[in-house]
Amino acid sequence: MVRVGVLGASGYAGGELLRLLLAHGKAELAFASSRRYAGEYLFRVHPNLRGVTEMQFVGNDISKVSGGADLIFTALPHGQSMKFLPDLIKTGVKVVDLSADFRLKDPADYETWYGLKHPAPDWLDKFVYAVPELNKDEIKAASLSASPGCMAIASILALAPLFKQKEVKIDKDHVVVDAKIASSGAGGKPSLATHFSERYGVVRPYKPVGHRHSGEIEQVMSGLCGSKVTVSMSAHAINMVRGILSTCHVFYEGDVQNSGVWKMYRSLYGGQPFVRMVKDKQGPFRLPDPKVVVGSNFCDVGFEIDARGHRIVALGAIDNLLKGAAGNAVQVMNLMMGFDEREGIAAAPLHPV
Amino acid sequence: MVRVGVLGASGYAGGELLRLLLAHGKAELAFASSRRYAGEYLFRVHPNLRGVTEMQFVGNDISKVSGGADLIFTALPHGQSMKFLPDLIKTGVKVVDLSADFRLKDPADYETWYGLKHPAPDWLDKFVYAVPELNKDEIKAASLSASPGCMAIASILALAPLFKQKEVKIDKDHVVVDAKIASSGAGGKPSLATHFSERYGVVRPYKPVGHRHSGEIEQVMSGLCGSKVTVSMSAHAINMVRGILSTCHVFYEGDVQNSGVWKMYRSLYGGQPFVRMVKDKQGPFRLPDPKVVVGSNFCDVGFEIDARGHRIVALGAIDNLLKGAAGNAVQVMNLMMGFDEREGIAAAPLHPV
Amino acid sequence: MVRVGVLGASGYAGGELLRLLLAHGKAELAFASSRRYAGEYLFRVHPNLRGVTEMQFVGNDISKVSGGADLIFTALPHGQSMKFLPDLIKTGVKVVDLSADFRLKDPADYETWYGLKHPAPDWLDKFVYAVPELNKDEIKAASLSASPGCMAIASILALAPLFKQKEVKIDKDHVVVDAKIASSGAGGKPSLATHFSERYGVVRPYKPVGHRHSGEIEQVMSGLCGSKVTVSMSAHAINMVRGILSTCHVFYEGDVQNSGVWKMYRSLYGGQPFVRMVKDKQGPFRLPDPKVVVGSNFCDVGFEIDARGHRIVALGAIDNLLKGAAGNAVQVMNLMMGFDEREGIAAAPLHPV
Amino acid sequence: MVRVGVLGASGYAGGELLRLLLAHGKAELAFASSRRYAGEYLFRVHPNLRGVTEMQFVGNDISKVSGGADLIFTALPHGQSMKFLPDLIKTGVKVVDLSADFRLKDPADYETWYGLKHPAPDWLDKFVYAVPELNKDEIKAASLSASPGCMAIASILALAPLFKQKEVKIDKDHVVVDAKIASSGAGGKPSLATHFSERYGVVRPYKPVGHRHSGEIEQVMSGLCGSKVTVSMSAHAINMVRGILSTCHVFYEGDVQNSGVWKMYRSLYGGQPFVRMVKDKQGPFRLPDPKVVVGSNFCDVGFEIDARGHRIVALGAIDNLLKGAAGNAVQVMNLMMGFDEREGIAAAPLHPV
Repeated sequence: MVRVGVLGASGYAGGELLRLLLAHGKAELAFASSRRYAGEYLFRVHPNLRGVTEMQFVGNDISKVSGGADLIFTALPHGQSMKFLPDLIKTGVKVVDLSADFRLKDPADYETWYGLKHPAPDWLDKFVYAVPELNKDEIKAASLSASPGCMAIASILALAPLFKQKEVKIDKDHVVVDAKIASSGAGGKPSLATHFSERYGVVRPYKPVGHRHSGEIEQVMSGLCGSKVTVSMSAHAINMVRGILSTCHVFYEGDVQNSGVWKMYRSLYGGQPFVRMVKDKQGPFRLPDPKVVVGSNFCDVGFEIDARGHRIVALGAIDNLLKGAAGNAVQVMNLMMGFDEREGIAAAPLHPV
Repeated sequence: MVRVGVLGASGYAGGELLRLLLAHGKAELAFASSRRYAGEYLFRVHPNLRGVTEMQFVGNDISKVSGGADLIFTALPHGQSMKFLPDLIKTGVKVVDLSADFRLKDPADYETWYGLKHPAPDWLDKFVYAVPELNKDEIKAASLSASPGCMAIASILALAPLFKQKEVKIDKDHVVVDAKIASSGAGGKPSLATHFSERYGVVRPYKPVGHRHSGEIEQVMSGLCGSKVTVSMSAHAINMVRGILSTCHVFYEGDVQNSGVWKMYRSLYGGQPFVRMVKDKQGPFRLPDPKVVVGSNFCDVGFEIDARGHRIVALGAIDNLLKGAAGNAVQVMNLMMGFDEREGIAAAPLHPV
Repeated sequence: MVRVGVLGASGYAGGELLRLLLAHGKAELAFASSRRYAGEYLFRVHPNLRGVTEMQFVGNDISKVSGGADLIFTALPHGQSMKFLPDLIKTGVKVVDLSADFRLKDPADYETWYGLKHPAPDWLDKFVYAVPELNKDEIKAASLSASPGCMAIASILALAPLFKQKEVKIDKDHVVVDAKIASSGAGGKPSLATHFSERYGVVRPYKPVGHRHSGEIEQVMSGLCGSKVTVSMSAHAINMVRGILSTCHVFYEGDVQNSGVWKMYRSLYGGQPFVRMVKDKQGPFRLPDPKVVVGSNFCDVGFEIDARGHRIVALGAIDNLLKGAAGNAVQVMNLMMGFDEREGIAAAPLHPV
Repeated sequence: MVRVGVLGASGYAGGELLRLLLAHGKAELAFASSRRYAGEYLFRVHPNLRGVTEMQFVGNDISKVSGGADLIFTALPHGQSMKFLPDLIKTGVKVVDLSADFRLKDPADYETWYGLKHPAPDWLDKFVYAVPELNKDEIKAASLSASPGCMAIASILALAPLFKQKEVKIDKDHVVVDAKIASSGAGGKPSLATHFSERYGVVRPYKPVGHRHSGEIEQVMSGLCGSKVTVSMSAHAINMVRGILSTCHVFYEGDVQNSGVWKMYRSLYGGQPFVRMVKDKQGPFRLPDPKVVVGSNFCDVGFEIDARGHRIVALGAIDNLLKGAAGNAVQVMNLMMGFDEREGIAAAPLHPV
């Protein structure tokens, strides 16, 4: 059993990590930290864990937590890991960081997307941006990983087959990513915008331009195709608690066939345990829909071709707390530790829910 | 009092027409027809109308209904009006058609979008495609009007200011319309896809390509700018009963400023009673969101500029049964009859709801 | 036109009053006050009112507001009216109070249910507890009215016919009121309990015993039947924004027939414009359900008889912000002012929504 | 590995059984039958199972299925098992029946609650009514078990401690069970009543009297306390897909203390792995709420005392498809087979969801 800890375990991604790790066959939860809730039972903050564990939160004090684990998940607010991790890493512990702090490789991108100068730019290259379906071998060899943003990974998995291939020419300047996201992606802090009466039933275009996950998608797509890709992203908060659908509108030149595009997806995702290709002729769920991945680490991907508009609509659906956060992070840990990739995250989705 | 009838009054758009007309100060409901529910009380089908009216449905028989009204709303399923209306019109009654049957001007478009040969192509030109904010004078003079599709009108009102102006060059080949729509837009007929347990919580990309409303948007935008516009539309069913948000991604050349785009919108919509421009700096509802138009005939429009991607995100939010159907139809009737445009549809939205 | 003001207009009941009063044919909104939002546009707080009014909030200062209106609605937090109103009343203005401060007649009841000593007990008798369906004449003659609590009025209207009649003996010690309420009843202040991710999908028994509205129901039922009634109430927050269903379980002795109980309801509510009796043999809405009153001032009442258990299940469904707050308050104003009872609140419910 | 089959696997309870059994460590899914979907992939009907299994439905033909399994779950519609099971049982297979057909012991109860004459009354005594928390030893020894109705088990677990004890005198004639249930309890068959637009947001008192689960609760409570108990039950469909809250109003004589009632619950449920006692002083989830059991086999129980009304409000919250159906059935199988009771059903709930 590897001993693992969770730094910043009181948020929703942290809570989901706890749920997964407490049931993991190869990992043992060494600690769960929270500055605010130190000393409190985990189940006071995460009511689902009542009856599951009697563990309590510890504080975030490095000196206390660093010795307790072989691998640490950091689920701290953005901007915290970048200050905190360099010291922690020196203790030799492995790290899977769920924040945005080490996802982008170019320090300039932090200025573009986060409006800040990264305090530890030398560390950026030391973290693997971990999308197991794209760079599994790199992750297996890594001791420091950055797990992608939730909307980023849904979009990346939807788009990657199109940007990796060379047969069809893709328009790299007009890539529209229109994302629909559940409330849990915005975290657990109450505000007027998250007050139930104000939040229920919305289709809130809360970030129609400039969403930070754009930078991650661009980084990966540019890497896959070898030239600069510009992603035009808009993010909408909708009426649900878990789930993301990323609708990606991609323009192409020439002709494409269903079978050809299908092959692009299959060649990339055949054998990947957590990507399901969904493209049926009938039924209510004939294309990706987050409803049927809730509770699982699956990313459902699919596409449709709009020959008239020379457009491929690529779709990615995930549970934002699983493949979009904790589930992918555990998958990454499994790879880093040499475990079966599916260990602890093989649960099927719930349906209906 | 003008006497008005509703043909096909058992559906959701029909029911909303009844609700509006029963409270209209200048119109009197002469009849409400339904083939299936003839003889039944209206409130058996539309439970909100209990205690509001004791009226019963009549059948759809033209000979009976044509004499009873000065103006008839047709809310029949698509494909019915095109067979039914030519005879009805000959009786001299005015018509506001809520179906798609007379919206498109070019018969070839019915083959493209509906896969059928229009049986009455000569009538297409006789109907005004009625968006009061764009062609009010034409509507005032009309005796036959076609009220737009729900997603069409939300998108059209969001996009029109950009296609009407000449200052900024708009890319007419990469116009993405990503629409999010409530369940009532799909009508009242049960199926597995609308079964609550299967429909609740979905983000269902039910028509990622080829949505019929694309043709209406193209027709209007091409008309406004004077050259062919291709609309790349995707429609998503989401977890709500009323409302549409249309997110329109439009690419431009050169530079644009907030103030310049604002001016385009204001010059088109200043003085329009049912368009609200929404673009605030703070608050949960700083951009259009269908939540805060529910129950009203408002269309909220707004935009954001993505200078990095040379993109304008134009947003339109409506209550799909009001501005997207019955509300706009009554507004059109008001204009055709010379009434105050707001008569009977001036109710403010409900909030919170 | 009577001039009316709203004290405490930034909450949900206040906002609903504004919506109704801005469209009222006989009343003119003189002012809307809010300590917190003085100087702010109404539509910044109530986004539905954008495009409806350019009015701004004023402060709560009595000296400023007292002269501006013939009648004032007070929608202040509980505990404020009792301090504030005595001075205001002396100016001669009529008052409809939406708070709990003058609903109970016996000062001791404030100690039982609110745990406080009422600071103005002499005023309690001067307010009419205003349920128009039960004491219309009294309200017409009143200059001071207290509008009931939302769950109280739904339960009172469901129960009154059973406690007013003498034919069937009702068990006064085992009256169970099991209420299901929407989020807007809890107001607009964010907290962890109202945070969307925590509040969505709950069936939260937030007040299983000791709910304050019990006292109001007991007061009215005891008054109707002439002896002490004990109400055993439990309140549950459920997954919606507007609406209340009150399920009242009442035990009886001897035999009762459907027709007999129906007669009790009809004799009390026949001719009441805002009570609909709902008891059908088929259809999804054959008994009261808040879904089909949303947006209206209706209270739907109905019942079923459980002969085996000697129980009548009496049901009341309302929109908590309308018949449960602002709608009833405007109805009360209409009566106090000699207007048609339905003025400004005759809108039919929305369906589906 | 024991080989198990599911008869009637296309419904929601059947689908949940499949999900659990496919991940069970000690059981192997031998077959899943469906008359309607024979030959179809499981994942066409249960979209969550895509990527989880390539198994197909077989028909319901006894001769084919009886040899394939050591234990069979029957999740057929009510009324089917009673015709089907006697023949199947003769083959020696063990059975866990999820239908109502063998739950009641007295044939007369089938006439009372189901309006039918039971065709196999001699078999009623051969089935154990299986609530593991109440009769674990009996289940361990059984080869035929009937898993309780969903609202029955939530209510039974909430009420049992009060009816098993002798210290406090409970009023057996005025036991009110007010249940709130999610849509999945009504199954997967579309109808107008389940059409999303009509079902969303309801608080539908669909069975205010005469609910069939009353008979099960009465049977168990009468058995526990040794004399006839009458249950007055009302069932409400509310706006969610999974979950039940049963609010049980019980009247008592004399005095009771929190500590005393707490002891009653603890003495019955201490050590039970799937009952959590929830009674906190603060937090949004201080009493049972189905939101925080979704995805798990937990039943959360708690209570409050209303000394004024001599009432105990006992609460039970479950996921209706787990502890209310498939989860309890697997727990029962585990006991019948001598496995660890928690095998395959130990997943913690999801939160937030």
